[in-house]
Formats: sequence, structure tokens, C-alpha cells
Amino acid sequence: MSYEDLLGFVRETEALSQVAGRLSWDQETVMPRGAADQRAEESAALSHVLHQRRTDARLEDWLAQIDDAALDPMGQAVMRHVRRDFDRTRKLPPKLASDLARLTSRAQGIWAEARAAGDFAAFAPTLAEVVRLKREEGAALSAGGDVYDALLADYEPGTTAAELDAMFGALRPRLVALREAVLDRPDPGGVSGTFDETAQLAMSTKVAEIFGYDFTRGRIDKAVHPFSSGSGADVRITTRTAADDPFNCLYSTIHEVGHATYEQGIDDAYALTPLGQGVSMGVHESQSRIYENQLGRSRAFTGWLYGQMRDAYGDFGVADEEAFFAAVNRVQNGFIRTEADEVQYNLHVLLRFDLERALISGDLEVADLEAAWNERFEKDFGFAVDRPANGVLQDVHWSVGLFGYFPTYTLGNVYAGCLYGGLRDAVPDLDDRLARGDLSAATGWLRENLQRHGGLRPPRETIELACGMVPSEGPLLDYLEEKFGALYGL
Amino acid sequence: MSYEDLLGFVRETEALSQVAGRLSWDQETVMPRGAADQRAEESAALSHVLHQRRTDARLEDWLAQIDDAALDPMGQAVMRHVRRDFDRTRKLPPKLASDLARLTSRAQGIWAEARAAGDFAAFAPTLAEVVRLKREEGAALSAGGDVYDALLADYEPGTTAAELDAMFGALRPRLVALREAVLDRPDPGGVSGTFDETAQLAMSTKVAEIFGYDFTRGRIDKAVHPFSSGSGADVRITTRTAADDPFNCLYSTIHEVGHATYEQGIDDAYALTPLGQGVSMGVHESQSRIYENQLGRSRAFTGWLYGQMRDAYGDFGVADEEAFFAAVNRVQNGFIRTEADEVQYNLHVLLRFDLERALISGDLEVADLEAAWNERFEKDFGFAVDRPANGVLQDVHWSVGLFGYFPTYTLGNVYAGCLYGGLRDAVPDLDDRLARGDLSAATGWLRENLQRHGGLRPPRETIELACGMVPSEGPLLDYLEEKFGALYGL
Repeated sequence: MSYEDLLGFVRETEALSQVAGRLSWDQETVMPRGAADQRAEESAALSHVLHQRRTDARLEDWLAQIDDAALDPMGQAVMRHVRRDFDRTRKLPPKLASDLARLTSRAQGIWAEARAAGDFAAFAPTLAEVVRLKREEGAALSAGGDVYDALLADYEPGTTAAELDAMFGALRPRLVALREAVLDRPDPGGVSGTFDETAQLAMSTKVAEIFGYDFTRGRIDKAVHPFSSGSGADVRITTRTAADDPFNCLYSTIHEVGHATYEQGIDDAYALTPLGQGVSMGVHESQSRIYENQLGRSRAFTGWLYGQMRDAYGDFGVADEEAFFAAVNRVQNGFIRTEADEVQYNLHVLLRFDLERALISGDLEVADLEAAWNERFEKDFGFAVDRPANGVLQDVHWSVGLFGYFPTYTLGNVYAGCLYGGLRDAVPDLDDRLARGDLSAATGWLRENLQRHGGLRPPRETIELACGMVPSEGPLLDYLEEKFGALYGL
Repeated sequence: MSYEDLLGFVRETEALSQVAGRLSWDQETVMPRGAADQRAEESAALSHVLHQRRTDARLEDWLAQIDDAALDPMGQAVMRHVRRDFDRTRKLPPKLASDLARLTSRAQGIWAEARAAGDFAAFAPTLAEVVRLKREEGAALSAGGDVYDALLADYEPGTTAAELDAMFGALRPRLVALREAVLDRPDPGGVSGTFDETAQLAMSTKVAEIFGYDFTRGRIDKAVHPFSSGSGADVRITTRTAADDPFNCLYSTIHEVGHATYEQGIDDAYALTPLGQGVSMGVHESQSRIYENQLGRSRAFTGWLYGQMRDAYGDFGVADEEAFFAAVNRVQNGFIRTEADEVQYNLHVLLRFDLERALISGDLEVADLEAAWNERFEKDFGFAVDRPANGVLQDVHWSVGLFGYFPTYTLGNVYAGCLYGGLRDAVPDLDDRLARGDLSAATGWLRENLQRHGGLRPPRETIELACGMVPSEGPLLDYLEEKFGALYGL
């Protein structure tokens, strides 16, 4: 029994986990539709194998016998991940784990039907059962500590709801105020016309390359929802197109390229170990968002992009670079989180964070969730939700048991704000480069200072080391107020 | 311990085996090229899981405790497969199995290099080691019986080399004579011009549908080598195109559709059990070959196809249906098995069968293999091999340890000949239907009488039941002599 034995076992588990990811990619992109039932059995068989490995009796022996202090920093980091995962598995009663898996697999379909029917009541009893089991899960994992924190730790280990609450509490009033001020100003307008799909995909491919996506270790396909999948040498992304909105395809691609280059940028030495993937959801989202927003939606880069789009599409109703910058960053009323602009996006997330904490703590009953959602939405956004599909039923997350996941979106934006400060200090001529469509210094800085470390250090430490400061919401707020203040003449 | 427990275990193993197949498909079609090394680890991890399941200690207990006679016919057939597989695994020393896996994985690369360099001597020592280990394997599996038969049983259980030798011995002189007679006659000529790739792929898709390929449970992609992959509800095929030869894409597609519709046609009740896939290589090849040749290259079907091709490509230098029929079935001298016409294909296989039996028995040394190949080739084909890539180094099979595989190609052709007789009796208006591009009666008969049974019965019994006769080489020879006699005016 040695660290090398454990590492061999863990590497094989990680390799099988990559296979499971490949299978999901296949399902979302190329799988024949008639194969769905058989695929469910194939995926379940592989999940069963992975579960058996994560609960393998040898792990306990290895963990008891290995002296972490005798290992090098990489070994110690691997042990930290393995011990945490094993501890989690050990704490969770097997029956609760299988009850949750069965329920959430069923609940997703019930949610989709309720959403289509616009009937929250049809979903409420199922969601109540999900909440009940997630509270049980959180209680088992927390071992007497905070239940919500225990759920959050699955996505953002080392961060507490109290920390997020302080951060988000400072965000909310300034975002609400910024939103109101911006929407009081004239609408700058957007693009017009239709945009050829082949040209959109070609431009996305070109921009993905410019942002450093390595096509020899990845590929782009079309799918209903954009996503990034896989780690190491095989990191694939998907995109989608809308004929009247070229930004949908373009910016969802840049977003996924942020996720994917993070995975591609991790030190090869960590491949197929627990260090060989993005360290947390929040840190992952910091990469997708800084690529998409602070870089991709900057005045400098959109200036270059405008020329590219004119070359590709001719006249699309936008007169010059300034008008294009405004069109890319147009702020409009809307119900849907995934379609929200930079100013409003985090308000959507904060709403979900507060409501899901109240559900888990028991302060809010599922029966009262729709009313609570609608009340909070009107308070922050100034108009009423018109139907459940535009409100409480819009996101899949809760149906599949993702509680503690939403706040990592905003945490990622906060981290992106901090990283952007560090990046600007390190690359003084950043805007000149972006204006030439040259992303290499920016993506190179992120790779060198953050991405390559993978899971070597805990998430917060990873961010602090990269941006040289204790992360806070200040830089994000300053950035948003400055950018949108200038854009809207505030 | 019950049959139900065993079946649950076996179903999960089959599901994982399908995942492994999906991973291979991915590797040959869509995998980014930089992912090869990581993929090797992913595939090895999955192979390891499959190996562990095939040697799982519980299997021995189940097999000891289950009373096969108390089961229904399906259960008895499942037990027959499971007992045979377990018996094979038990007989094979684990070290020999891993030595073979390591050697053949290395040998394929050495073969490819030797082939490119045209240097058999560079491959010979490695091949000698493969032969040595395959003889060991055959000896371990045969337990005192015929060594080659034990290897053959991996691909065609229930058939012996002695039976094949008698069958092939009757084939060879008549095929050699037919070949000589045909090549004495004037060359009918082929197509001319270039054929648009998109149009070729569209025609292949159309023809695949006509031959009964279910695209809701499959898909066609391009790959370097055409293949069929997967069972049940997810059976994918690949094809390739050559700008000057539309038949390459078209007939390799029909061939793979034969394999794939066999898998798709198996009774749903057998899915993810050992009965849920084609019962042997020979039976599989009977389906691909009857689709491709007896049906796809028939006078009746090519008459319909000619009209389709004129519509798609305009004038391609073939005057009428008769000339087109001759062009599709053109017989020409050639070195390469995979490019051979119906008359010569089996002569290529017979050569390999005789040489590989001699290698395994020890009658032929690897050092003498090239000379033996060249001598035999000139004897049957009437001209000399010009270089190893056109001779002894042309096929990958031996490098990866496939001994006993080659004869199943010709056995499949023999089976196709017998099935074609049964089909003609059952569908008297077959030619009228083919002439209208209507394959439904033919593919329906094959599905009903052969394909749907999957692995329910042993291979020979499966064929006998379908064609109502003890299979022999007679029908294939009669069919070839009649078809090519008429075509070449013999």
C-alpha cells in the first residue's frame, strides 16, 4: 500500500470519469435519437462502476496508511482531494444517494412538463421532495455544521454562505441602482438583418482560435445548449446559432472557450489526477466570464470585431465602432437569466441564492416559492413576471438537485473582476492589443497565473495567487459602473 | 444466486462493452488528434473494468448453481454464451493474455512502418513472436485439441479448419478457372469523370435507407476505413469517398449497412445480452456480402441504380444499363484483397487461410512467409507480387493477432450464396422488385429468417434455419459462374 498504488487507482477512476463525460457529449451532439433508452443503461452501468470505485474498500486502507506530509506538494494536493471525496462518500448514506439519483432523474422530466404547461403547482410536490432529500444530504454532509454550506462545498469548497451573503449584499444595491439608471437612458439599439449560419460558425471558429482554444485537443459542434466537456487533451465545446442574433453564437462560444481553455491550460503533469481539472465552479466561471465580458465585450476588442463582422456580413444596421460597442452591451428588460446582460445577470443569481437558502433552511416552503420569486423579481427588476416559464420554472437546476450551484455564477463574476484588475496591471498595453484582435497576452497571463495550476491549491487561494489580492466585489462593481456609466452617459 | 442475478451482471457488462465500442467509434471519427495518448489511457481503464468483470469470482458461483435445463430457450442460450466465455477466460493464463495485448498493440505500429518501408524483414521478428504467443494461446484454449480450431472458435464457434478446408478446397479450382476465363475476355470498361463528394454521400444515404438502415438508431460519418459499430439501438457506420470512383463509397456503404441492419434487426428482447449481437463473423459477413453483392450488384438492382446515377451525375461514360451492370462487376487484375471483385476476393482469403494455418501448425516459418505468399499468389493469380505492401504486408490482421479471422470472410460469402437461394425461392418476384429499387422483401426476409435471432442459436444452425439447407460452397459457385459467365460471354 503506497501513494503510487493509490495514484494508479485514482488515475484509472479519472480516466473512466472522462469516458462518462465523452458519453454525455455524444448524447448531446451526435447520438441517434432512438438510442436514448439504451444509452440510459450504458450510462447507468458506467456510473455504477464509478460509484463502486469511489467507495472501494482499499481507499480507506490507503488513506489510513499514507503519510501526506512525506509527499511533495502535488502529492499532498492529490491527497487533499482524495480525502475530501472519500469523506463525502463515507458520510452519505447509500440509500439517500440512490433515492436522490432516482428522484432527480424523474424530477427533471416533471419540471420540463410543468414549465411547458406553465403550471408551478404540477412541479411543487416533486420539488418539495427534492428539497427534503437535499436537506437530508446537507445534514449528513455537514455533520452538525451549516446545511447549506455543506451543499455549497460540492461546487465551491472553502466558501461559506455567510461570506457570499456579505459579498452579494454589497453587490445588490449598486447593481439595482445601476440597472435603473441605465434603463432610464435611451436604448442604443441593436443589429438588424439575418446572419448566415455558416458565416456565424466560421466567425466563432476564428474567434475561438484567437482566444487560444486548441483545436488539436478539442472541437466545436452544434447542440441545443452550449457547453464545455472533458479535461486535458480532449476538451470539446458546443455552440448554437440564431439567424437574427449573431451575438448568441459568438459570445456563447467565447464563454465556452473560457471554460475549455482553462481545462486545456492545466499542467500536463496533472492530467487524469484530481488536479487535472478546474478547481471549482466559481473559478471556472471566472474564466468563461472574463473571456466573454471583460475581454470579449470590451470597447477595444469590439472595435476589432466590428471590422470582422462588416467583412463577413456587410451592413447590419450599425454605423460605427461606438454604436457596435453599445449594441454588444445593450441593456434591456428581460425575464431570463441566461439571456441577461452584464448589469442584470447577477441580480438574477442573487434572487436564486436567497430563495434556495430559504428553502434549505426551512424559512420558505416550496408552496410559497412562486410568490416569493415574483415578489423579489419585481422588487429588483421593476416589473412583474408574466408566467412561470419566465419566472420560477425557467432554470433546470433545482429539479436536478443543484442547490448551492447558483451562487458560483456570481462568485465567478466577482473573481473575474479581480482577475481583470491583475491582468490590466500586468499588461499595460492590453487595450492596444485587444484593438488588434490580439488576445495572446491576456490569455497567456491567465494561463500562467491561474489556469495551469488546476486543482493544486484550494479555489480561493488559486484566485488570490493569480490576482494578488483578497477577492471582493469592489473591482467588479467599479468595472461595471465605469463601463456602463460611460456607455449610457451617466 | 439466481439466473436473474447473473443476467443483471451480464447486462451491465454488455452495456459497458457498448460504451467501449462507442469510444472506438469516437476515436475513428470525431476525436481531436491531440487526444490520442489520453484516449489510450481512457480505453485501457475501460478494458480493465471489462476484464475484471469477465473474471469476476461470482461468475463461477453462478455457473455452478444455475440449472440451465430449468430455463427457457432464451435463458439457455444466454447460459451457453456465458459458459463459453467464462471457460475461455479461465483457460487463458493471465500473463499470456497481457503479453499478447502488449505485443499486438506494439506490433501494429511495427507492421505499419515495415509496410511503408516495403521491408518484410523489419516486421518478421515481431510477427514470429505474435505467432509464438498465438500458438501458446491456441494450445491453452484447445486443451489438447486442434490449436488452430481453438483460435477460429473466437470468431466462428462450431466450425473447424477441416470443414473449411474441404469447402475451400472445392472453391479454389473453380474460382481459379473462372478468373482465368473472365480475364481472357475483353475488359468491359468502367466509369469516367469525377464525382462530387456531397452527391456521393447523398446517394449513399438514400441507398442505405432503401436497404433498410434505420437512421433513428444509427448514423453515417466519414472515416479512413469503413466500419460498422455498436449493437441494438445505436449502430453507426462510416464510409469514405474517392472522387474518380463512386462505387467505393456506394458499395462500402451497402456492405456496412448489411452489418448494421443485422445488429439493428435483432429482437429487442435480446438487447444488452450475449444474444443481442451478430452470432459470428461468418454470419455477419453473410449479411454484408448478400446486401453488397447478390442484391446490390445484381443486374436488376444496378438497372435501377443506373437511372439514379444518371440523375445525380449526368453522363459518366457508361451508355446503358447493360454496360453499367458490367462496369459495376468489372473483373481486373489486382494485388489487394479489399479492392477485389466477387470472382477473385475469395482466392485472396484462401491464400491467407492456408498460410496462417501453416504458421500456427509450424509447417511454415515466418522467415519463409513472404516467399510462400508470393509463390501462392502467382499460382492463383497468374502474375507476380511487385512489393510487400501489395503482398504479405497488405493486411493489418496478423499484426494484431487475428489468426482464424480471415476464413470467416469466405465462409460469409458461402453463407450468402446459400441464403440467396433461400431468398429467391421465398420471393419469386425478387428481380422485379430490385429493378424498382425495392429492397423491402429481400431485407424483410433476411430480418425475419436470420437477423432477428441474434445469438439465440449457434452460427451454423442460424444459417441452416434461415436457408433450409446444410450450407455448402455449391450455391456460391453456381451463382458466380452463372453471373460472370453471362457478363463475359463464357
